[in-house]
Amino acid sequence: MGAETKAEIRQIEGGVTAAKGFEAAGVEAGIKYQNRKDMALIYSTVPCRVAGTFTSNVVKAAPVLWDKKIVEESEYAQAVVVNSGIANACTGSQGMDACEETAACAGKLLQLPADAVLVASTGVIGMQLPTDRICAGVEKLAAGKADTPEAGLDAAKAIMTTDTVHKQIALEVELGGRTVTMGGMCKGSGMIHPNMCTMLGFVTTDANISKEMLQKAVSADVVDSFNMISVDGDTSTNDTLLVLANGLAGNEEITGESADYDAFCEALHVLTTYLAKKMAGDGEGATALFECHVVGADTKEHARILAKSVICSSLTKAAVFGHDANWGRILCALGYSGVQFDPGQVDLYFMSKSGKMLIFSEGNACDYSEEEATKLLSDPEVTVLADMHMGDAEATAWGCDLSYDYVKINADYRS
Amino acid sequence: MGAETKAEIRQIEGGVTAAKGFEAAGVEAGIKYQNRKDMALIYSTVPCRVAGTFTSNVVKAAPVLWDKKIVEESEYAQAVVVNSGIANACTGSQGMDACEETAACAGKLLQLPADAVLVASTGVIGMQLPTDRICAGVEKLAAGKADTPEAGLDAAKAIMTTDTVHKQIALEVELGGRTVTMGGMCKGSGMIHPNMCTMLGFVTTDANISKEMLQKAVSADVVDSFNMISVDGDTSTNDTLLVLANGLAGNEEITGESADYDAFCEALHVLTTYLAKKMAGDGEGATALFECHVVGADTKEHARILAKSVICSSLTKAAVFGHDANWGRILCALGYSGVQFDPGQVDLYFMSKSGKMLIFSEGNACDYSEEEATKLLSDPEVTVLADMHMGDAEATAWGCDLSYDYVKINADYRS
Repeated sequence: MGAETKAEIRQIEGGVTAAKGFEAAGVEAGIKYQNRKDMALIYSTVPCRVAGTFTSNVVKAAPVLWDKKIVEESEYAQAVVVNSGIANACTGSQGMDACEETAACAGKLLQLPADAVLVASTGVIGMQLPTDRICAGVEKLAAGKADTPEAGLDAAKAIMTTDTVHKQIALEVELGGRTVTMGGMCKGSGMIHPNMCTMLGFVTTDANISKEMLQKAVSADVVDSFNMISVDGDTSTNDTLLVLANGLAGNEEITGESADYDAFCEALHVLTTYLAKKMAGDGEGATALFECHVVGADTKEHARILAKSVICSSLTKAAVFGHDANWGRILCALGYSGVQFDPGQVDLYFMSKSGKMLIFSEGNACDYSEEEATKLLSDPEVTVLADMHMGDAEATAWGCDLSYDYVKINADYRS
Repeated sequence: MGAETKAEIRQIEGGVTAAKGFEAAGVEAGIKYQNRKDMALIYSTVPCRVAGTFTSNVVKAAPVLWDKKIVEESEYAQAVVVNSGIANACTGSQGMDACEETAACAGKLLQLPADAVLVASTGVIGMQLPTDRICAGVEKLAAGKADTPEAGLDAAKAIMTTDTVHKQIALEVELGGRTVTMGGMCKGSGMIHPNMCTMLGFVTTDANISKEMLQKAVSADVVDSFNMISVDGDTSTNDTLLVLANGLAGNEEITGESADYDAFCEALHVLTTYLAKKMAGDGEGATALFECHVVGADTKEHARILAKSVICSSLTKAAVFGHDANWGRILCALGYSGVQFDPGQVDLYFMSKSGKMLIFSEGNACDYSEEEATKLLSDPEVTVLADMHMGDAEATAWGCDLSYDYVKINADYRS
């Protein structure tokens, strides 16, 4: 998993059904896609504390508005219904009605109030949801839900749009002598520039944690996980991360800052960072995960801005696609980030499994081998390390290369 | 020319040699490109007032630093030497030495002090200029300079990098009973997101105007011309706009706000907007000029931010390339611009020479024909009109579509 952790965190098999009390399902509902799963359900056998972060886009999809209200006003939630294919964004009051109908339909079948049912949509903007097919889908989901790894996998597959692989992970961590399990799934892979990511992310855990501390943990976490990735610089109308905690692990409730809270946050960060990197590496048309690690910055916020500017640069991304060591574009992207620094003090390295090369130092290009640089840049995971020599702050951002396939996928996405 | 003007402005043939007293040349110097012109000279027979705007990138190329000093500290300049192929950016003290050597060489041949010689470079970042070839090129330029339209055209061609067409224009305007001529040329076409565009732009005029009023006119102008275009969101290390005014038209000197100053600004804006649009439409790999016109915004600055957000959206640009009426991406881009508005109040139109269509209104998609929308979006100039219904402010931004060729050009630009 790579991250340095203090708490003992173990990766285990599975995803959103790994934690106690969580069930899931993924079914074919024919919303827009044909012959593939396109609706998912996450369900907890007992009520859950719920926290979330949502798109900062002024244009918020109907399901974002629905969920935001629940996260902010309700004490508990118990189910999430997700569809892919249609985003239910820019759909006016009819779009809100569709959320309410979906939740009511699921509530009736699962014997829950409608406001205990969260909804999420991803796909084309501007089309109305076919609520008859949505409700038929919910029926199949409710009938087929299970607490098995296979059910979790079905859900992770059903939420994909242009994703080429499903994305899930599960972890265990000890909190107050109890083993707490945490599972998560997410989807990318275009309109990804989370400021909260058309990312949808769902985390389930059996940790016992207060609503307040759960939201605090989630809000603090996304700043250095999902908000540090970008595929194309477009912040979606639907970005949603929901975290459900049902308490079934039986640990003493986390109600404030504590060693247990820190361990929970650490485990959450390992999980979200794993999912965020998977999302960036599976960006539309991507052939490589492109990471920028900034060290020696004067402040943490500056380190974040610098790292994100590099992974967002179209020119740098095209160079990574071409395995071309065009480091001038990287220095250029650092330079227009808005952060002040002395270019003469910056050291730039290219890193991958093939090695590490100093490319630029003391204001000049280093005497490196273009052949070796091209080899290094041909790896499926490429890192730029920028040492600003200004202080101790560091940050990492993740993106992907810019390929012909990004254009192909997006020139005619709707047909 | 399209813009509404109060002053009588006439487009005439030519470019940087159109105004009285200006000469130019373009030659093959073999800096990096082979078998094409790659060095240009602009020369005035008498000293010129000079104004300029430069990149806001922290990483400034050596020629930007050289010119900035002259524009800020010198009373007059008389020549500009430009090379394409190598940007002389991220080249440390050796890069600054190359500027000095170029200026000294030109100064000697043109009998000018070195600090009357402006320099500009565009091309690959990080390579050192071959000063022997630069100086040999300067000799050819000085020997071949002329005040003919052909010489101006040679210069406009010599400064091109990935540009597919040269870009120049010339205008006449009456100031105080005298005919003042203004000519300009520029190049794009990647790393274009001017905040003060690797655009290089050069304007020559025989207007008689004080240094202070010339700089005031230029600084005010770029906000709504070059700074409102983007090809790829990357703000270059070399962006430079230089305006040289030699006074030979014999109009009474413009030394403050006046009807003449307003007419000068108007003519300048027609010229810079023409060049800016040409640059956007010839963006790397572009098949269409993509314009966003925002009306009904609450403030001018908000109108600018909204328009620029739309033309910068990778997803929207890919949709334009695919002639796909994916208006949801446009609303999405307005939404993440940072400007607050009510999506339910926005009207969106697609416009081109083929017509005008209302696409989105009152929070919902309109009942438009996809076939007609595709036809409209197949024009080489496509406009999105967004009416925010909040106030009277408006702004226009220009970009281009995102094509396979953008990726091709930039995946291996250096080889």
